[in-house]
Amino acid sequence: MTRILLINANTSDYVTQKVAGVARAVVSPGTEVVAVTGEFGANVIATRTELAIANHACLDLLARYTNEHSERCDAAVIAVSYDVALWAAREMLDIPVIGITEAALLTACQLGTRIGVVMFGPRVLPVYQELAASYGLASRIAGWRGVDTSAPYAAGDQDEADRLAIEAANSLVERDGCEVVVLAGAVMAGVPPRLQAQVPVPLIEGVSCAMLQAESLIRLKPIKPRAGSLAALPARVQVGLSAALTARFKDAP
Amino acid sequence: MTRILLINANTSDYVTQKVAGVARAVVSPGTEVVAVTGEFGANVIATRTELAIANHACLDLLARYTNEHSERCDAAVIAVSYDVALWAAREMLDIPVIGITEAALLTACQLGTRIGVVMFGPRVLPVYQELAASYGLASRIAGWRGVDTSAPYAAGDQDEADRLAIEAANSLVERDGCEVVVLAGAVMAGVPPRLQAQVPVPLIEGVSCAMLQAESLIRLKPIKPRAGSLAALPARVQVGLSAALTARFKDAP
Amino acid sequence: MTRILLINANTSDYVTQKVAGVARAVVSPGTEVVAVTGEFGANVIATRTELAIANHACLDLLARYTNEHSERCDAAVIAVSYDVALWAAREMLDIPVIGITEAALLTACQLGTRIGVVMFGPRVLPVYQELAASYGLASRIAGWRGVDTSAPYAAGDQDEADRLAIEAANSLVERDGCEVVVLAGAVMAGVPPRLQAQVPVPLIEGVSCAMLQAESLIRLKPIKPRAGSLAALPARVQVGLSAALTARFKDAP
Amino acid sequence: MTRILLINANTSDYVTQKVAGVARAVVSPGTEVVAVTGEFGANVIATRTELAIANHACLDLLARYTNEHSERCDAAVIAVSYDVALWAAREMLDIPVIGITEAALLTACQLGTRIGVVMFGPRVLPVYQELAASYGLASRIAGWRGVDTSAPYAAGDQDEADRLAIEAANSLVERDGCEVVVLAGAVMAGVPPRLQAQVPVPLIEGVSCAMLQAESLIRLKPIKPRAGSLAALPARVQVGLSAALTARFKDAP
Amino acid sequence: MTRILLINANTSDYVTQKVAGVARAVVSPGTEVVAVTGEFGANVIATRTELAIANHACLDLLARYTNEHSERCDAAVIAVSYDVALWAAREMLDIPVIGITEAALLTACQLGTRIGVVMFGPRVLPVYQELAASYGLASRIAGWRGVDTSAPYAAGDQDEADRLAIEAANSLVERDGCEVVVLAGAVMAGVPPRLQAQVPVPLIEGVSCAMLQAESLIRLKPIKPRAGSLAALPARVQVGLSAALTARFKDAP
Amino acid sequence: MTRILLINANTSDYVTQKVAGVARAVVSPGTEVVAVTGEFGANVIATRTELAIANHACLDLLARYTNEHSERCDAAVIAVSYDVALWAAREMLDIPVIGITEAALLTACQLGTRIGVVMFGPRVLPVYQELAASYGLASRIAGWRGVDTSAPYAAGDQDEADRLAIEAANSLVERDGCEVVVLAGAVMAGVPPRLQAQVPVPLIEGVSCAMLQAESLIRLKPIKPRAGSLAALPARVQVGLSAALTARFKDAP
Repeated sequence: MTRILLINANTSDYVTQKVAGVARAVVSPGTEVVAVTGEFGANVIATRTELAIANHACLDLLARYTNEHSERCDAAVIAVSYDVALWAAREMLDIPVIGITEAALLTACQLGTRIGVVMFGPRVLPVYQELAASYGLASRIAGWRGVDTSAPYAAGDQDEADRLAIEAANSLVERDGCEVVVLAGAVMAGVPPRLQAQVPVPLIEGVSCAMLQAESLIRLKPIKPRAGSLAALPARVQVGLSAALTARFKDAP
Repeated sequence: MTRILLINANTSDYVTQKVAGVARAVVSPGTEVVAVTGEFGANVIATRTELAIANHACLDLLARYTNEHSERCDAAVIAVSYDVALWAAREMLDIPVIGITEAALLTACQLGTRIGVVMFGPRVLPVYQELAASYGLASRIAGWRGVDTSAPYAAGDQDEADRLAIEAANSLVERDGCEVVVLAGAVMAGVPPRLQAQVPVPLIEGVSCAMLQAESLIRLKPIKPRAGSLAALPARVQVGLSAALTARFKDAP
Repeated sequence: MTRILLINANTSDYVTQKVAGVARAVVSPGTEVVAVTGEFGANVIATRTELAIANHACLDLLARYTNEHSERCDAAVIAVSYDVALWAAREMLDIPVIGITEAALLTACQLGTRIGVVMFGPRVLPVYQELAASYGLASRIAGWRGVDTSAPYAAGDQDEADRLAIEAANSLVERDGCEVVVLAGAVMAGVPPRLQAQVPVPLIEGVSCAMLQAESLIRLKPIKPRAGSLAALPARVQVGLSAALTARFKDAP
Repeated sequence: MTRILLINANTSDYVTQKVAGVARAVVSPGTEVVAVTGEFGANVIATRTELAIANHACLDLLARYTNEHSERCDAAVIAVSYDVALWAAREMLDIPVIGITEAALLTACQLGTRIGVVMFGPRVLPVYQELAASYGLASRIAGWRGVDTSAPYAAGDQDEADRLAIEAANSLVERDGCEVVVLAGAVMAGVPPRLQAQVPVPLIEGVSCAMLQAESLIRLKPIKPRAGSLAALPARVQVGLSAALTARFKDAP
Repeated sequence: MTRILLINANTSDYVTQKVAGVARAVVSPGTEVVAVTGEFGANVIATRTELAIANHACLDLLARYTNEHSERCDAAVIAVSYDVALWAAREMLDIPVIGITEAALLTACQLGTRIGVVMFGPRVLPVYQELAASYGLASRIAGWRGVDTSAPYAAGDQDEADRLAIEAANSLVERDGCEVVVLAGAVMAGVPPRLQAQVPVPLIEGVSCAMLQAESLIRLKPIKPRAGSLAALPARVQVGLSAALTARFKDAP
Repeated sequence: MTRILLINANTSDYVTQKVAGVARAVVSPGTEVVAVTGEFGANVIATRTELAIANHACLDLLARYTNEHSERCDAAVIAVSYDVALWAAREMLDIPVIGITEAALLTACQLGTRIGVVMFGPRVLPVYQELAASYGLASRIAGWRGVDTSAPYAAGDQDEADRLAIEAANSLVERDGCEVVVLAGAVMAGVPPRLQAQVPVPLIEGVSCAMLQAESLIRLKPIKPRAGSLAALPARVQVGLSAALTARFKDAP
């Protein structure tokens, strides 16, 4: 039985359930998805400050779940579109860890040479740009659009949000020559099929891409590095962390 | 039944069989791998001239197979490490197409921030560097090593080739700080498990990565673009091409 | 007597004749231009698939002509704006080889710090961008414009095409601060003088630039590399290629 | 009276005191330095996981101090060499915030075109490289050296550490052509004067640079942005954060 | 007593006085500002040719002043927005030298991730872009605007110039997502406070930034390099230079 | 009769004569080379300060010659390897202007994808790197070597300098994979043929490349820009310049 841990480092269970539903629909029949919600921090991460705090919340959640549960997970997917704590999690854990925006961008690299990105909330535009640059992918992204609505973060009518997303995607195709468009944000899980007919290039989102890549990496079985910045955590002194996180810095028995 | 077309654009059946064996071991139980060998061009591509010709050979093979066989393939994997004709194939076909070196590099992006690449035959070093740069990934690659042996291209003792590859990989880790190492070349299929114990960071190769990504993309079901440089081929006048290729430029009935 | 081989890897003699006329007007009195047309492939290359095939057609034509004719050519110019098989030809031959788009971009580098590019057919925009990036010149190009007409590829009224090209060039100057504009495409040979009066910065095209650079390189007499990816082809096994191409992979007598 | 808040997001008071002593010696007579130590997390940050957690610890400390104390600080300096939570703090606070590594690199930009960086602990090399790249400064850094000793993190004999740092700095000058060398790490505060005589180019460290830049920015008085990703935090729902952090997300009264 | 030499390499005393007034208002009480005007060259530099000549004028002025005056200056600020002769001055002198545009850009790096630049006179746009690129900061600059008025170069009504600058700055914020805006040009000294209320992100200019950084570097006391391209000038043969410049190339006594 | 003005902005006639001899051997029979030596500044430019001054000297020389002589020159070549005042000269004059290092690098782009550069005097290494970066060509240059001898700047035995240059070039080929090597420096004129037999890839130098490109651009006849930073100088107020330079800033009659 393969098991993938799906981390929502936000504290909103609404998003967790939405994302988990899509994730379960994407994975292979034999794969279980264990979805968990953050225990502290923002309901919905939308500022740099919330994002910085979520790094801790995400690692805490990962440590907690992997320490306290008897069933081992085979991979973890971080379902926060800023890919919080992604490389730290790759260091802390010995299973593959996938971030949803990294996953979407890497998939997009296989579908078009010029990638467009649509995100919700113009305030976060620079944050996404910094993230894409941190992956070395800045030159692949030919256009960005920020859509100014928070409708996708709640149940309710999505018509206006859909209309804005379609308009943004088509503008990326027509004005910037994009040949694939990423809808950024965990809440975009499940949305592409609804909009695809009205956009002439592939529309993708990160949760589906990440779940598929998680299953691929589980089958690829890369070793845990024994050298470099992703090698297992050494024993180190910590103060005031949760028992689960503290345990991660103890010598292996 | 899922079916993946595995293209070896070289004309050497030895490499096709080697690669196909590994590919079949990697894919899911329900997936069939159809392996085909190039009909013209180099036995083993190792020069820029052979590579340029292989672009045609690869497309011809793809057109031939997808036109002439009743069973539709769901994706194609180009098992030549220079990813010959990759974007052209993405234009010509309406199924996902994966290149093995692109696949290995994108997978490596998820396993370490600093990627090392080991290749066989120092003559091809610039060609690989141009390929990685064409993917926008030059900044992710922290080191390159060319190993001077052609042993992997034939059956026979691989001890010396293995020793050189291990030495190159460890040098990438120690001197260049690489945290994941790609063994470039279709003939590296199946090799990482044999060498991994002697290298402290993940060793990967492209055929396995590509097969897994092919399965992922089949499940993701991106649409065929209706705009841009990857949209379906328009009707256009061709001279002297195979019937299969020529048919690709006819109006849809 | 200096002799320059002018390769049109398209199969349209119309373009060959147009280009050859301009080329002959540009070269020095003592220089002969031998113009040849592709024997297989697209009438006019306008898709990635046709371009990939043209790599083979171009090398075949180069091999055929240089093998079969008693008069040696002193340089070759590839008059296809995607510079098909350019580096492969530099490997295969021992004379200078020039691509028309590379030639135009390098010349533009001497005429303005910010280069603009106008091309015909918006579908090919990403292909040109990839080509410029492959030359390391992406940062020099301050703007791109795709003009949507195929008029230049045939005889007949060019007024509308001219008007669109002038408009595109002036937009590059005014909106993007370009200080020199390249008209991309072999069929732009001879066009700049007709439009120049209506554009306030230098307008250039590749065929003229390439012919002049070919004459320069003939006089510079660089050696054929004896090391690296451009050294003479080694003897290698080929299958199903033309006699001319096959002969290129035989040991020198 | 000017007051600068000096944040050590590590939980080791030893480093705080060391850094504060140097900071007090650097600032103008009229400037008070208030030094505080992290309340949770690593004694000394040296892994990606500790660094990710420190983002939260740093913001918590900043919120706590600026909320609870009657005397307003005029700027904050984050004295952790990974510049944890730097941009988030710039969003959360309405005073200038300076990171010590950013400060050192920007100062280095004024002292030499080619910058070298020496850091302690080779494991962190990629993390520093990612940080420099995130500032857009990757092209200015001509060489990196990791020195393998933790001696600077404790009182005691520094002779061996000094010797290694001098050797690394001189290697950057001689082999990589560096014209200024940054000693990275908060514990390098106060070290450059001790080593400078043995290195022929300027040696600098971040704490001194940051204190000087903090004083400069206090005098420059940039406004708090009212637009973009650094504008004041909006009211937002948080769960389980400290009272001080929670208060930051309440509407202004 | 600290003394900063403020160089206006233009030959217009109007600009010198304007700049010096702002500089004196910015520096600490104990700092003297010595302002000097160029002895040859353009009244106001606005073309590449004038700028190239100003390199000489600037060095001549620096050599003249520092040789002929008994009071040593502790730093020099080059108050020409093209930062003329900046690195040469850093080689020729043994005190810190600051350029106003470099100073503004480095300060901007601490205030926002995406920097906008407004300049006066569209002709100079490429020159500023080349300057920013030479500092390795091209990727930090998210937008440029050229304002077409020369009003700031003379006394008189600035209303129209102010209106254009505000409009340009706000366009950088709204269309390009800039989070800090630099007003380029020595004549922008003193202008930001007048316009700031109408722009929602920090507006800065180079003279203030440079004076503050000069004071910081004076306190940091970096050594004069003894190696590399910024080491003291060796004795070398010169022809036809001013006595002051010639003296710079004599052996130290 | 075609006439090319060859500018040596150094004040050493030895270099002028050496360079002019090679230039005359390279140009077509019908082309006259007019070689002039700088009237002020360094005997041989080897520091940043000398280089900055040479910008003025070069423009003065260009203005003087083109104003005072009845025979019009058709192009100018700046035979100083730092390409002093290159873009300013392109603005000031209405004929093509070529810099020798730009010429060599652009030619090298046509001969190999990975370029190596050998220069004399390690102090100047960063200056050449900045120059190459300013042309947007940094990514094409795979290796740099500084040779520590000044022998080429005088008559006399060149054996040791030759040996060092050959060693540097071969190291670039073997260790850095360079496929073409540029010998930087005007004094390298005429040297490649002497060393070529001992280096397996093309060795080129700038004077020959520049003369050939000058002849090409004369035949291409690009217009003088009427817009942008290279348009003709407007009338502007100058102080203390030579009559020739001052005349350049007067309104056309």
